[in-house]
Amino acid sequence: MGKLEFASRTSVEQIEEGYELVPKFGPDGLMPCITSDASTGEVLMLGWMNTEALRLTIETGEAHYFSRARQVLWRKGATSGLVQNIVEARIDDDQDAIWLRVEVAGSGASCHVGYRSCFYRAVPLGAKAGQPLVYLEGDKTFDPGEVYGDVPNPTQI
Amino acid sequence: MGKLEFASRTSVEQIEEGYELVPKFGPDGLMPCITSDASTGEVLMLGWMNTEALRLTIETGEAHYFSRARQVLWRKGATSGLVQNIVEARIDDDQDAIWLRVEVAGSGASCHVGYRSCFYRAVPLGAKAGQPLVYLEGDKTFDPGEVYGDVPNPTQI
Repeated sequence: MGKLEFASRTSVEQIEEGYELVPKFGPDGLMPCITSDASTGEVLMLGWMNTEALRLTIETGEAHYFSRARQVLWRKGATSGLVQNIVEARIDDDQDAIWLRVEVAGSGASCHVGYRSCFYRAVPLGAKAGQPLVYLEGDKTFDPGEVYGDVPNPTQI
Repeated sequence: MGKLEFASRTSVEQIEEGYELVPKFGPDGLMPCITSDASTGEVLMLGWMNTEALRLTIETGEAHYFSRARQVLWRKGATSGLVQNIVEARIDDDQDAIWLRVEVAGSGASCHVGYRSCFYRAVPLGAKAGQPLVYLEGDKTFDPGEVYGDVPNPTQI
């Protein structure tokens, strides 16, 4: 199979009303990717893709990202086995963000901290603004120390 | 009510395992925000927030964004009436992305092109990579020309 190539962006009409994938990456060469569980609709993570990650994701049907912390292309699940198989990929109106609906292999988790979703804490709103975050999941689904070993934690202060 | 203030980020443990909201904004001062329909789980849009947009969102329970095209703070629905009332807000593990589950006022649409979701086109995968995008919604829910009039289109080539 030949390498998938992306066409140039030429007009608002082409971008918003067309049938051609003409993705736009930010000044850092990256595009945000929303990844949700295809069956529950729960958002699992917000990742980033460069051109190559987007191309591999589309060609293989498995989510690939670009790690900003490690500055490398990253096949999700390469270390943890928690591969994300894509049920549906969608591009947004101005084609600078992508949404993947996935089925996750293994335990179904997607968060390096050990939870199912990276979004495991709710932010109190309105009259409760400023109150402590609320944990929404119970126990972690895996022990990050066992799974990742000496791999550096990607969270940056 | 006093202005909500965000604490400083001091450790990975504080950020990932704590109860304190310590958001991180990118080099451009912005954080990506995923907004989904609270009842269907459909992702409606990917927006951006600066500190003030995040603060107002949390304090008012209505989604506020920062428009990168217009470089202004933006209360969603101010022009269109399609206000997003937040059912739940969640922060991710490293606290540099937020997810809003919302109920949208009026027609329920969130996309300036006129569709319900900004993600109205699917990207063919695998053996079908490179084939035309697939439109997932039927007719537009509103006529953007009528609603926005002379407001410049935010899509940038």
